[in-house]
Amino acid sequence: MRAKTPSESRTIMTDLVLPSETNPLNNLFGGELLARMDRAASISARRHSRRITVTASVNHVAFNRAVPLGSVVTVEAAVSRAFKTSMEIFIDVWIEDRFTGERTKANEAIYTFVAVDDTGKPTEVPPLEPKTDLEKERFAAALRRKQLSLVLAGKLKPSDATELKALFLS
Amino acid sequence: MRAKTPSESRTIMTDLVLPSETNPLNNLFGGELLARMDRAASISARRHSRRITVTASVNHVAFNRAVPLGSVVTVEAAVSRAFKTSMEIFIDVWIEDRFTGERTKANEAIYTFVAVDDTGKPTEVPPLEPKTDLEKERFAAALRRKQLSLVLAGKLKPSDATELKALFLS
Amino acid sequence: MRAKTPSESRTIMTDLVLPSETNPLNNLFGGELLARMDRAASISARRHSRRITVTASVNHVAFNRAVPLGSVVTVEAAVSRAFKTSMEIFIDVWIEDRFTGERTKANEAIYTFVAVDDTGKPTEVPPLEPKTDLEKERFAAALRRKQLSLVLAGKLKPSDATELKALFLS
Amino acid sequence: MRAKTPSESRTIMTDLVLPSETNPLNNLFGGELLARMDRAASISARRHSRRITVTASVNHVAFNRAVPLGSVVTVEAAVSRAFKTSMEIFIDVWIEDRFTGERTKANEAIYTFVAVDDTGKPTEVPPLEPKTDLEKERFAAALRRKQLSLVLAGKLKPSDATELKALFLS
Amino acid sequence: MRAKTPSESRTIMTDLVLPSETNPLNNLFGGELLARMDRAASISARRHSRRITVTASVNHVAFNRAVPLGSVVTVEAAVSRAFKTSMEIFIDVWIEDRFTGERTKANEAIYTFVAVDDTGKPTEVPPLEPKTDLEKERFAAALRRKQLSLVLAGKLKPSDATELKALFLS
Amino acid sequence: MRAKTPSESRTIMTDLVLPSETNPLNNLFGGELLARMDRAASISARRHSRRITVTASVNHVAFNRAVPLGSVVTVEAAVSRAFKTSMEIFIDVWIEDRFTGERTKANEAIYTFVAVDDTGKPTEVPPLEPKTDLEKERFAAALRRKQLSLVLAGKLKPSDATELKALFLS
Repeated sequence: MRAKTPSESRTIMTDLVLPSETNPLNNLFGGELLARMDRAASISARRHSRRITVTASVNHVAFNRAVPLGSVVTVEAAVSRAFKTSMEIFIDVWIEDRFTGERTKANEAIYTFVAVDDTGKPTEVPPLEPKTDLEKERFAAALRRKQLSLVLAGKLKPSDATELKALFLS
Repeated sequence: MRAKTPSESRTIMTDLVLPSETNPLNNLFGGELLARMDRAASISARRHSRRITVTASVNHVAFNRAVPLGSVVTVEAAVSRAFKTSMEIFIDVWIEDRFTGERTKANEAIYTFVAVDDTGKPTEVPPLEPKTDLEKERFAAALRRKQLSLVLAGKLKPSDATELKALFLS
Repeated sequence: MRAKTPSESRTIMTDLVLPSETNPLNNLFGGELLARMDRAASISARRHSRRITVTASVNHVAFNRAVPLGSVVTVEAAVSRAFKTSMEIFIDVWIEDRFTGERTKANEAIYTFVAVDDTGKPTEVPPLEPKTDLEKERFAAALRRKQLSLVLAGKLKPSDATELKALFLS
Repeated sequence: MRAKTPSESRTIMTDLVLPSETNPLNNLFGGELLARMDRAASISARRHSRRITVTASVNHVAFNRAVPLGSVVTVEAAVSRAFKTSMEIFIDVWIEDRFTGERTKANEAIYTFVAVDDTGKPTEVPPLEPKTDLEKERFAAALRRKQLSLVLAGKLKPSDATELKALFLS
Repeated sequence: MRAKTPSESRTIMTDLVLPSETNPLNNLFGGELLARMDRAASISARRHSRRITVTASVNHVAFNRAVPLGSVVTVEAAVSRAFKTSMEIFIDVWIEDRFTGERTKANEAIYTFVAVDDTGKPTEVPPLEPKTDLEKERFAAALRRKQLSLVLAGKLKPSDATELKALFLS
Repeated sequence: MRAKTPSESRTIMTDLVLPSETNPLNNLFGGELLARMDRAASISARRHSRRITVTASVNHVAFNRAVPLGSVVTVEAAVSRAFKTSMEIFIDVWIEDRFTGERTKANEAIYTFVAVDDTGKPTEVPPLEPKTDLEKERFAAALRRKQLSLVLAGKLKPSDATELKALFLS
């Protein structure tokens, strides 16, 4: 399979925060943002793999900034690394000030999707070839995240997680 | 503040999987489940703190089992550890077989909420006092997760993450 | 068929009142609460019968207390009596005070569901065996309600509605 | 206050059954129909009273016919009797065959609404003056229903429910 | 095929403006109104043709009046002219004042629908026979609109658009 | 006010077609697409004007291609011409083949928005400066469309619509 670049799967979903999606402080519910990011990431995974894709996991997501009612929110997703049948998707969330138009980073999240055939069986996906510095950095970190996730799930011995060990022993 | 037990914040949300919440394989969208878990967890956090609560982060969530259209899904959330102004909420997701009624575990997830006042400023929450063995185990693990999250965010030196170091050095 | 207890079909659905579900006084729409109770009751009927179940009727429902935006609402449903192919479901609705956590009864409702096979034809359901005093009381009253409903539908002569006659002749 | 006729509050809500509103048999959920009838009835109550109106109760509703996905459903609501601050609304539900256009009755329901001021306090509504035979019949039956509801709520002694007694003693 | 009158396809959809459908000025979103009009018009087209119908185009729609949250909105649709396989639907939108009940025109819109068979292929529809003066006027104008739409799509030479030419040469 | 380019208001909204948005042929409802285009266009209008913006009108929209359930739909909106207080927004809609990833044009639409202040009063917007050939072509055509819309609304004499006259006299 031909390798693809992150640009080929980049997905931009700009939309408003509607009244039905807000909490008692009039900010976007965390759960709604998680659902939007899931839809954007699933499109990104499909663009990379040209397969049906299903959410396999959500990495640690931090909600650093409240997103007020009426905001314009841009969710930008792209594949950050491809493994055999799974893809890590890196998601950046931006909000824009209504009056100045200034764009600020609201969140980052990392989802993992698996490509499946019509029966739901995992199928192979193309490799990813990062181009920019940021893409390369995210590509490298993706391996550490995968090891961490395997360790936490008890599927990899901590002593075999070479990338992670370095982190804690340094 | 008087300590509270996990039972005092336990929240049970049983509901159907509706047609509008399914993906092309006729299973519940990952994003919809994330949104339901967020609502259940936020109620749990409110029951513990009696404050307005906002999602601070979502820990690693693995989607191990597809949840088909028409399933009965039970999301069960309870506070697993309280810190100064934040609470870790542990969420178990069950689905039940339509015909045998057999209940199987579909997912686990961990969310962190912060209690805030009317202006959005973090405010103190009561400590948690775990009672059962499972509650005690989750209480202990919550500290390791908090350290891990601080390390990953660059707010704690790996060498100071005593709980985690033990894991990788053993 | 083995008799089942109300506990085996008890269904708890705790959720928030969202902005999209409120009327001009900022309280939960009656119609939204009717829809939530219908979903909870249908799960309860399915747990008792292990069949597809469809709403057959809604008994008199009184809306005694407004349920404000942002409330935590708990809908609790359980089978109160089983007939040949139908089940009466008794539903209690509770709301809880955001700050004190005090739980108050907001509503009661009674729905009837019929168990059907894949073609929509009614099929037999297990009998119900009430255990607690409250369950026994609701079980007894269910027969009076069924007679009343048959009388109002013109399917039972008032003079044959023995349970009801006693009520009006005493 | 000038009396009003049922025509002045008649409300017609024709809409499709959408995929998101159906149960596993591909028919309209009972709960969704209850919610639509509530909205139509509330408009009817508002047209009669020119006040904010809130659902006070739902009378016995029987679901006699399944309403399949894609159907055209007409909910027709009109005030059937006005009391001091409350109004009984009679609702007829029709579905129409996609190909022949034949209209058949799918359901009937009766809701009661209360007119309130901005603080939620009940306020007086105009009397109803029925015109057609059907309107007169529903007007008369409304009193029996009110007595029955008061008896069931324990607010009227069965022996004082003169309209109802006649029914069971005949 | 027997000709039909506009009355036979007249569709009335009265509903509330709900909080989830409003913009930052607390008025109904233009897009929500477009969606409601589309549903009403599609029912109207189906009533005329007794076929599956799909939206072919939306004519110029002007939003002259804001529709505030809580309003009662009536969308009234009827076929204004039938062509071989398509139908023009004329839609009037009314809102009513909560207190006086006064009804004012909020919008007008014109949609075109095509009747299709189960495979999506266009099929013939009955002719329309206008009865009232307003129906006759809209019937006549429909031809000019069709010519204009063909000219704008480059499918009709302006010099052959006899109805339109008259307009600009007069 | 400084002139802005179309790029500065370009808005990309990529999203899935969900089951709740489809008609009986399993294609996206026309009305849903109209609502999505309205949200994208309103963001575009806001980016150009940095004001609250409300839908003023929808130009002729043709639905040339069905958009099937599960499709990835990209709505791309940008200001095509600015007048004193209003902006014309040109919207392109693309769908992409799940397997080949081939992108095809599904629709075009033109909406007009007005910028308003907090009281709903129209306020001035910056001029538009088109850059590419396509942008210049749409900019020129926008004036003809505005004249046509004024003629159809009876606010401009056909003989004064110089741009349009040329079209029909040539």
